[in-house]
Amino acid sequence: MTDNRMRLGTAFLATGEQMASWRYPGTPADGAVNLDHYVQMIRKSEEGKLDFAFIADGLYINEVTMPQYVSRFEPVTAISVLAAHSTRIGLVATVSATYSEPFTVARQFASLDVLSGGRAGWNLVTSALDGAALNHSRDGHPAHADRYERAAEHLSVVRGLWDSWESNAFIHNKETGVFFDPDKMHRLDHRGKHFSVQGPLNIGRTPQGHPVVFQAGSSEAGKELAAQGAEAVFTGMGGVSTIAESKRFYEDVKGRLAKYGRTRDELKILPGISPVIGSTAKEAQAKYERIAGLIDIETALRYLGRWFNHHDFTQYPLDEPFPELGDTGSENYKSVTDRIKRNAKEQGLTLRQAAIGNATPRGPLVGTPEHVADVLEQFFRAGAADGFILLGHVLPEGLNDFVDHVVPLLQARGLFRTEYEHATLRGNLGLPEPINRYAQAWTDSAASRPSYTTGKE
Amino acid sequence: MTDNRMRLGTAFLATGEQMASWRYPGTPADGAVNLDHYVQMIRKSEEGKLDFAFIADGLYINEVTMPQYVSRFEPVTAISVLAAHSTRIGLVATVSATYSEPFTVARQFASLDVLSGGRAGWNLVTSALDGAALNHSRDGHPAHADRYERAAEHLSVVRGLWDSWESNAFIHNKETGVFFDPDKMHRLDHRGKHFSVQGPLNIGRTPQGHPVVFQAGSSEAGKELAAQGAEAVFTGMGGVSTIAESKRFYEDVKGRLAKYGRTRDELKILPGISPVIGSTAKEAQAKYERIAGLIDIETALRYLGRWFNHHDFTQYPLDEPFPELGDTGSENYKSVTDRIKRNAKEQGLTLRQAAIGNATPRGPLVGTPEHVADVLEQFFRAGAADGFILLGHVLPEGLNDFVDHVVPLLQARGLFRTEYEHATLRGNLGLPEPINRYAQAWTDSAASRPSYTTGKE
Repeated sequence: MTDNRMRLGTAFLATGEQMASWRYPGTPADGAVNLDHYVQMIRKSEEGKLDFAFIADGLYINEVTMPQYVSRFEPVTAISVLAAHSTRIGLVATVSATYSEPFTVARQFASLDVLSGGRAGWNLVTSALDGAALNHSRDGHPAHADRYERAAEHLSVVRGLWDSWESNAFIHNKETGVFFDPDKMHRLDHRGKHFSVQGPLNIGRTPQGHPVVFQAGSSEAGKELAAQGAEAVFTGMGGVSTIAESKRFYEDVKGRLAKYGRTRDELKILPGISPVIGSTAKEAQAKYERIAGLIDIETALRYLGRWFNHHDFTQYPLDEPFPELGDTGSENYKSVTDRIKRNAKEQGLTLRQAAIGNATPRGPLVGTPEHVADVLEQFFRAGAADGFILLGHVLPEGLNDFVDHVVPLLQARGLFRTEYEHATLRGNLGLPEPINRYAQAWTDSAASRPSYTTGKE
Repeated sequence: MTDNRMRLGTAFLATGEQMASWRYPGTPADGAVNLDHYVQMIRKSEEGKLDFAFIADGLYINEVTMPQYVSRFEPVTAISVLAAHSTRIGLVATVSATYSEPFTVARQFASLDVLSGGRAGWNLVTSALDGAALNHSRDGHPAHADRYERAAEHLSVVRGLWDSWESNAFIHNKETGVFFDPDKMHRLDHRGKHFSVQGPLNIGRTPQGHPVVFQAGSSEAGKELAAQGAEAVFTGMGGVSTIAESKRFYEDVKGRLAKYGRTRDELKILPGISPVIGSTAKEAQAKYERIAGLIDIETALRYLGRWFNHHDFTQYPLDEPFPELGDTGSENYKSVTDRIKRNAKEQGLTLRQAAIGNATPRGPLVGTPEHVADVLEQFFRAGAADGFILLGHVLPEGLNDFVDHVVPLLQARGLFRTEYEHATLRGNLGLPEPINRYAQAWTDSAASRPSYTTGKE
């Protein structure tokens, strides 16, 4: 951690992280396409001084898609609308590097950065679902390693395009007719394995220099990509990882930064959390059970199968030890399936227990606000996290409870801000301002250079 | 025309249509990346009850790009932000069918349609500039005919994806756990020359059914695409076409509808206008000269060359007849270059006159508000237009003058609305509601069908 403060973001996961969350009382069933719901959540998040709100995505639906996601907002349009309903909070949208053009991604996030006054963030994903290829005119979905190779090149192109213009390139002199200084515009001329992009980008340098890049993969390739180019990483905790496990992941990723010439402060690691809060431990437990009870076992098995490439778990006995799967269906969400298998083995879980626990992970964050704040403080002080991303089993309740009851405790303990310190997401996250690769000391007179003009001089 | 009312839209062309508009007093030089400027313009447009605001685009910049466009908002993000700053006006953004995925385009506009309550429009372009290919990992920019072939297939895929869900597909029954009726979800399974897209789209049917599709090409291929699939067409008038010319274009395009099984009312033809308004004719003429005088002749020649694939016009004598060009550089903007050549010949223009007139077309719309209203009424009543799109040589002045002085006259004459009649852009434009290709009469009991559920039933 760079200072003594946590960074806290929140995921706008439609009706909530849990797959039956849409059935929860007070949760709008159509949350994923309900603008009022999103506006209320961004206002609540900003009231809580959270660093950012984040919109997840998927590029394919089928029978096993979580129902609240079969009809959902496209993240770039939704986050842009939310920019106008907020003033200080960061705005993070997911776009797949596998099914997008770097020029488009660079433009959209640069544009959002200008439109929001420096609050844009790109959550780079590689799209885990095979079916995404079927919606994007591809012969087949690329394998895990290929997707990450492409993503690394995609990101390097996007960053290159974000350097197209130096910050003082635009002169806007109405008298002389000089609009910009052409020496401060730079073509990228990238020619790589996956992309050829000339540039320059057709939007100037943005308030953040580069919008903040988020990433979530926690596979080997994912960790390497994060170390190479991301600035914040979402990672699984979800109430299931121990401090020791989280610290291992934290040190693993932070330890990879040096070889890319980066310091440990240049990447924030933010485990996901899904607290269930009650005024007493008993009340919180009852609430957890109410949430978990929204799902029946057949649905929980199908949801478990989603991570294992739609593997059919109904073929195994429910109350015997979790089945031996080998590498079955572990291609797409490898780090998740490894964790599920490891936990089942270590804790001796039956299939039923594993399925229910996977559908609504209980973990240590069920309890009073004090209890939740204690656990988060322990993780943070142990060096297992730079902060957290709130997922919320059910929304907006999970977010409202956290902002109303846990944030004030974290603030009182000096662990979280009471007011935004900076105008930009980058500033609030404590990330360094990126240096434009082309920027140089100002050596010769601007007046002596040729300038691009329109009209009389 | 379907009724006795004009349709009026406005183009948010950064600082204005004219290439030196950024130098005009009162115009923000950085208009293309100035959110306040856009917010003021959308509010003014809505005050004037205009049907829609439209954001143009370009995918490549070089030495001859109009300076106000070298740094510009990406249209989808900008129009999404403007959705939150408006309540009734239509929101039209440009996205190229040559450099986008139909799945992404269908999602973004469907999402915007939901977020804006039925106000989204897609301006389908094919990207005229060769250089766009260099920014999008393509070997070369496709030829004109290929781009239109691809565009037609792209549009048919997008429309197919917009039919993925019937309007009553979502049940959202928290008690029974039935989220949607799977019989009302439809896969497209498109396999064509340019695209293979399975579907379904991951967002339900939107308020407009289909967002409104705009198109601007007026070449042969452009007119055919418009007749086949667009619902509103921008066409050049810009003060240069006569009523007879506009009527010819109007009848030409309307006459092509029948062979696609469409009626004349299903496509609105909206010539572009750039009025210059003064309280007297003399004042208006002086204002026109002030605007035209912002550009010098070298710049005007370069701008002329932009339409002719960057042809160098400085090689010709300025005050002799417009040069014989044959087919030089007419590949990308064929209808524009044909018109420039034809006008120069018919009117016996010198190169200088053609260049200045091209940079700031004067036409018949320079005068008092009454005069401008008269000309628009003549075009409208003659059956040469269903309405107009306001371009504005300089912004926001051109828009403000039009809304403050011309709109009230059109309203007083019963030619334009005094209040929005409908909640949707489609409704206000008087376009029919699209019928979902899959929708059928309700014949069997919903209860007897299998339903996709989560949780206990």
